[in-house]
Amino acid sequence: MALINQFTTQYGLVGKIDAFGYLDYLKANPDVSRKHGKVVLVTADTPLKASRGEGKTTTTIALIDALRARGIDAAAVLRQPSMGITAAGSKGGASGGGKASLTHPELVDWGLTGEMAAIENAQNLLVSFAEKAVDEGRIDTVLVPRVSEVPSRSLRQIVVDRGKGNVPERVVLTPTCEMMQIVVVSHSMDEIGQRVANMVAGTKNGVPVTFGSFIDLWRITGILKDAVKPAKTETVNGSPVYVHGGPFANVSLGIPTLVSVEMACALHDVVVVEAGYGADAGAQKWLDIASREFGAAWPAAAVVVTRASTWRDDPALSWRYPFHVNRLENLGIPTFPLINLWDGEDDQIDDLRKTAASLGFRSPIIGNLFRDGGKALEPQLDDFVAAFDASGMSAAGDADAVSENGSRDSHKGLGLVDDVRWIARNAYGVPSERMVIADGFESSLAAATQLCAGADVSIDDLAVVAVKSPATMTDDDTRPADERTVTLKKVEPHFGAGVVQVNLTTSLTTPMPKIV
Amino acid sequence: MALINQFTTQYGLVGKIDAFGYLDYLKANPDVSRKHGKVVLVTADTPLKASRGEGKTTTTIALIDALRARGIDAAAVLRQPSMGITAAGSKGGASGGGKASLTHPELVDWGLTGEMAAIENAQNLLVSFAEKAVDEGRIDTVLVPRVSEVPSRSLRQIVVDRGKGNVPERVVLTPTCEMMQIVVVSHSMDEIGQRVANMVAGTKNGVPVTFGSFIDLWRITGILKDAVKPAKTETVNGSPVYVHGGPFANVSLGIPTLVSVEMACALHDVVVVEAGYGADAGAQKWLDIASREFGAAWPAAAVVVTRASTWRDDPALSWRYPFHVNRLENLGIPTFPLINLWDGEDDQIDDLRKTAASLGFRSPIIGNLFRDGGKALEPQLDDFVAAFDASGMSAAGDADAVSENGSRDSHKGLGLVDDVRWIARNAYGVPSERMVIADGFESSLAAATQLCAGADVSIDDLAVVAVKSPATMTDDDTRPADERTVTLKKVEPHFGAGVVQVNLTTSLTTPMPKIV
Repeated sequence: MALINQFTTQYGLVGKIDAFGYLDYLKANPDVSRKHGKVVLVTADTPLKASRGEGKTTTTIALIDALRARGIDAAAVLRQPSMGITAAGSKGGASGGGKASLTHPELVDWGLTGEMAAIENAQNLLVSFAEKAVDEGRIDTVLVPRVSEVPSRSLRQIVVDRGKGNVPERVVLTPTCEMMQIVVVSHSMDEIGQRVANMVAGTKNGVPVTFGSFIDLWRITGILKDAVKPAKTETVNGSPVYVHGGPFANVSLGIPTLVSVEMACALHDVVVVEAGYGADAGAQKWLDIASREFGAAWPAAAVVVTRASTWRDDPALSWRYPFHVNRLENLGIPTFPLINLWDGEDDQIDDLRKTAASLGFRSPIIGNLFRDGGKALEPQLDDFVAAFDASGMSAAGDADAVSENGSRDSHKGLGLVDDVRWIARNAYGVPSERMVIADGFESSLAAATQLCAGADVSIDDLAVVAVKSPATMTDDDTRPADERTVTLKKVEPHFGAGVVQVNLTTSLTTPMPKIV
Repeated sequence: MALINQFTTQYGLVGKIDAFGYLDYLKANPDVSRKHGKVVLVTADTPLKASRGEGKTTTTIALIDALRARGIDAAAVLRQPSMGITAAGSKGGASGGGKASLTHPELVDWGLTGEMAAIENAQNLLVSFAEKAVDEGRIDTVLVPRVSEVPSRSLRQIVVDRGKGNVPERVVLTPTCEMMQIVVVSHSMDEIGQRVANMVAGTKNGVPVTFGSFIDLWRITGILKDAVKPAKTETVNGSPVYVHGGPFANVSLGIPTLVSVEMACALHDVVVVEAGYGADAGAQKWLDIASREFGAAWPAAAVVVTRASTWRDDPALSWRYPFHVNRLENLGIPTFPLINLWDGEDDQIDDLRKTAASLGFRSPIIGNLFRDGGKALEPQLDDFVAAFDASGMSAAGDADAVSENGSRDSHKGLGLVDDVRWIARNAYGVPSERMVIADGFESSLAAATQLCAGADVSIDDLAVVAVKSPATMTDDDTRPADERTVTLKKVEPHFGAGVVQVNLTTSLTTPMPKIV
């Protein structure tokens, strides 16, 4: 029996894997047979709107089906979609489509085995403990927001204890909460406990007070016992797919859990990681946060998905797709355009290839993945396979450093504003002189810096998480290149997760979409 | 292979059973082998406070272990404890203790397989749809409350859309919400859909508008797909235990799901159903709601649990235990006192037996169940087994009607206030003339009656759910018998669940206990 089966328990139609236990076992038993798979990112063009995906999950599924048909041991790691958003009809599920589907999309789209709900409960319980701490005089201000999986714009800003205390509070979506971030970056339950201990409950006379100073951490880790286990499912063609961690890389980490990717790399030769919405969100977070700051694998190759129409229909936005492809190439990552055709678009293939050539791209991979699944890709993958075979990148991240902009070094110590400048220049194409400091940003930064100092944390040691609209990279992507700006609006440190969120562009709110 | 295995899927350490499918199969195949088990209620004295249980779950577990040791095919049906309350430390778990424990109490106490969370999400999504209905002008007032599993008193009354709409809303605990009530009483997913369709979203110009008139019901039933399946676990001695449905019979139904009990009766000869807090809450709800109004089995016997100290230490409250035992006996249910000893109380057994005899009780069953488990009970069960063997009651409810007060007829049509009078007289010992109508009750009843009329429902056809403190049966249980009163405070119909809640006694709030 394969070793991993000893760490796997069936939960209905999905397997749940004790990834912490498996990775610990590998560490304690270095002679045990394991793989050192390479990570391939599937990311996308910036979508025209959040509800209109380009087909990243469909591509990821088709890609592993195609690679496995070629005899390569490939697997995918997906983020769990937000049931609240799907159930509300604000957005489709995220389980692929047509011939590029998971066997049980209804499981993945509709709450899996309760992972999101447990994370939501854990953070909400922390809020209850924080309220108790107010009653007991330990803190005078609660800083940790409540959490809801279900979208409801009216929950963004609430008042609790109506008619008595009338305390203003915030509610954020489950995938974006600090507890989700902690689950995404942690490598053990002990680390989760330590990170929860470092979360700021609130302040007392302006000085931050962390949960570790007054709660029983087992009450929180107890709730998370199953939520920390990646789920294993498969494509309709039997290719292995791991699902773990929350979506929404525009407003939070939005990447799969690091342990799910590390586990998959120990089990397979190629691990396709989905990173969206666009490359400016998902790929930026994978590269600049997961890899640089938390030791995740640097990608051996990347695929940037687009639809034929996205690439072409709005001339004012057509700069974005080549920008993403070129940025990743310039980081030394072999990057392949992938054009996900819809019905009636097959006759555009020649034109699309010409456009790609004129832009200096590698030869694009083109197919109707919904209709044809992995079979559409299989014959087109020679260059792609050769590229990641040739790459020295691996899960161990042991390749040479790449070019200046692409250095995989940590940005710790760079300084928060300089780090945002770096992101704006490299990921959004906006130079430093066109960064705009909004009213209130300086005071928000000063307050955050003071909060950090009070907790003996340097704000410059926290990984910067850009919070922005999924559909735009700058304040207005339709403006000419030399007029585009990025505005810094607000700063919010999450000590427990080890990140600091910086609100940019036109979306500064917590993500509670309108129900549709 | 046993038929039930075809309807069972393993979810980690517990089995999840498609009870709807199994019961449908039995109905469609009347010649298939099945049992017609009798229901035995385990209920208790009214607790001195909510956080101090008498030991119902411990007793239930010890009882089935003892019955099985005597060769009787017994099983238990428990309600899932509220993780929020347990994690907050407000109350212990509900998985027994010591030698009378479940094999995996941490599973049952800490969220099982996400059942509560799914029910919470389902009702919260309905609130989001109701808000959308406000935006669209379908309704002008939202009547369905939000739901939280995590206790937080400050959530009882909130304001959403702070700074803009400033809309007042309520939040109730998951176990007490209408969606939980619907799951508890329904026999199929179609019935759940129909009941959700009948839930009142809010009103438009005072006229109730139901969810069925504007939402896709599959969005809600999709969320509930696993939550409707009872979980199967076992005691440390291997006796089968089914867990399904929410607790808190003082403020809601607080009984296991009806399908979980029906399924257990098809599989076993004796099905021990836990019904608490005290007999005035859990047993009252089982008898007067589950059995009378929803067709559940009338109990073939009952056990009323108390501690030696509860029975004796507060003379002003010592009337309650005999009241409960005698009430159930007078309903024709053979009722056995069970005294759950704590360490150091073994020498009280003789005195306890004398007291029981002086009160005219059946011979009490006495043991330290934490220390000795079912072995403490096994030799004492001759009379108990003989009693339910002799009983004509069965899952089919085919016995003769019992005495006047004990008639198992529905109370539909009795009239809400008369029904509460009946409950107060029979379950709390307070005659009609000492019912107190609080200020505001009449207007609350009039508004509820009008709401019902607007929805073409007679309020008198809804099953009355008494909402009260778990620790008291009357406004002040320490007063002399002829001075005790019950106060009617507020009325809240739940059309979907088919019940109307009537707030009584000193507890009129939604149950958000203080976190401790």
